[in-house]
Amino acid sequence: LDLKELKVILNNNLRIHMDHITPHHPVSEVYDYMVFPPGKLFRPQLVWALASDFFCGPNLPLGSQEPYSFLASFVEIHHAYTLAHDDLPCMDDDEMRRNRPATHVAFGEWKALLCGDGLLNGSYGLLSKMKTPHLQTLFQMATWALGPKGLIHGQVMDLSQEMNHNFDSLLRTHELKTARLIQLCLVGGYLLVTPFGDEKIYKTAKDMGRLGKELGIIFQLLDDLTELESPQLSKHEQDISPWFRYGEQCYERLVEGLQNMESLVHSYHLNHFKIVFKEYAQKILHILEKGEATITGHLHRSGNQKANLMPVITLLKGISHRKDLP
Amino acid sequence: LDLKELKVILNNNLRIHMDHITPHHPVSEVYDYMVFPPGKLFRPQLVWALASDFFCGPNLPLGSQEPYSFLASFVEIHHAYTLAHDDLPCMDDDEMRRNRPATHVAFGEWKALLCGDGLLNGSYGLLSKMKTPHLQTLFQMATWALGPKGLIHGQVMDLSQEMNHNFDSLLRTHELKTARLIQLCLVGGYLLVTPFGDEKIYKTAKDMGRLGKELGIIFQLLDDLTELESPQLSKHEQDISPWFRYGEQCYERLVEGLQNMESLVHSYHLNHFKIVFKEYAQKILHILEKGEATITGHLHRSGNQKANLMPVITLLKGISHRKDLP
Repeated sequence: LDLKELKVILNNNLRIHMDHITPHHPVSEVYDYMVFPPGKLFRPQLVWALASDFFCGPNLPLGSQEPYSFLASFVEIHHAYTLAHDDLPCMDDDEMRRNRPATHVAFGEWKALLCGDGLLNGSYGLLSKMKTPHLQTLFQMATWALGPKGLIHGQVMDLSQEMNHNFDSLLRTHELKTARLIQLCLVGGYLLVTPFGDEKIYKTAKDMGRLGKELGIIFQLLDDLTELESPQLSKHEQDISPWFRYGEQCYERLVEGLQNMESLVHSYHLNHFKIVFKEYAQKILHILEKGEATITGHLHRSGNQKANLMPVITLLKGISHRKDLP
Repeated sequence: LDLKELKVILNNNLRIHMDHITPHHPVSEVYDYMVFPPGKLFRPQLVWALASDFFCGPNLPLGSQEPYSFLASFVEIHHAYTLAHDDLPCMDDDEMRRNRPATHVAFGEWKALLCGDGLLNGSYGLLSKMKTPHLQTLFQMATWALGPKGLIHGQVMDLSQEMNHNFDSLLRTHELKTARLIQLCLVGGYLLVTPFGDEKIYKTAKDMGRLGKELGIIFQLLDDLTELESPQLSKHEQDISPWFRYGEQCYERLVEGLQNMESLVHSYHLNHFKIVFKEYAQKILHILEKGEATITGHLHRSGNQKANLMPVITLLKGISHRKDLP
């Protein structure tokens, strides 16, 4: 099974699950628009990766009624509702999303708001279908990760500008707004193939939670770093870049995060995780290697003299390329 | 335990549960504003009523960690999020709610939207705490009742004006937008005090679902009927009143609904339900008895010659007053 085939299966399951959630009614066009075509299915792939890495058997079954298949669609649909609400005029006021008009531009604000609420409720409906002894644990973790103390609070910190108060606020926002959903993918993927009552559960789940936290933070720091590939950055672009405001802290945290990831990935032999991470890492590596001089120049000019992309590049390659079969 | 004491307890539990859901952060002011002071706590009272009616023992414990206590707060908090979203400018655009500025007027649109999402996620977080073998059943029922095929679809039918196409659309909208949450209160209150595997569960749950459907529809039809107490109705008020558009059908459905309710309430000896219903019924009876001539006059002028409030008044009294101890 390669990633291309995997994405076809994840997409087909998503279609089956959406048909289950949404009514036979013209408004389903709005629900579909919010979810299809999906993005890279990065989050569902992470669920698959962790389930595969901890599955005891040759090949993980990928039927739509498997509990991790429900979780995979849950995270994608939940993510889709956050994007539709984020784009609304009273929030980020973005008119485009994934090279298409945002949902509220295509269908009007009330449909984007209401169908977002629908996807939110409907996503929990998928969780409720999971046949697993871990149902209550997953349900508690999901509502904690995505609720008023989790993802939603990350959005609050972002929109209220609290995120920009200092470096810790920035990290906390990434942890809540981005990492929480990824943590759910990893811990959930692990739990759903693990027998109930296994005594190692708590330690491993905690480690997968740490891996998800690091991945979420790295994801955002690298996203901001690759923004610096352009030789000319406007005053505004420099002002909003955390790499200009907290260059050294960003750098240290990024390297630390990649090191922590590498250590977890290798000690748990997370080979499927590495396959999924590789696709992402290659896109980033392409930008960093091509734009190394430009990016390093920006970092040096912003006062971050120590900045050197080589350790970052080496770690990204290490996590995604190195063969490490058990 | 009288209703006044009950409301104090339900309110205290709601406070405990909200403290559990919301972050230690200034934004909690917004969450609190959306939920406190609560309305009449009608929905949580219904959960209590059904749990009490089916509880085997002298007095139903009302601690905050009882599963039906979580459900009681769930329905109130979920209801609060729907109100805050409904009031937004892109939805019903209401500036006032419960004699105060609506949430978006008091705190701004993005906070009303985002904290609404927070309450939605957080309400499911409360469900996830329930210690009950019925967890999965309740979770499935809640997401079905409140999701894209349930309450949300009622809001879609309302905002898209589909509700006004014909009498069946009107009833369907009431069933989805109002009755689904009430059905969850009644079926949930019943299930959470009933042993898992009891063979009568399916039949009784179905009957409680029917009771909830009737109550939701009656609630809306009576709400529209009491609007006719004013001697002078504007052209607009007449145009939007379902009692002017579908007078005979409204009348027949209301009487049928009250008869079905009376039959279920008496055959299951739902004495606590009757106590809760009584408070509501007395408010309605006061308006109907005082305004009988005016209301009947409006109905006759709109072409509904058969309209007679006496059977409605008698049924309302019958459901709420009659002693019927087992």
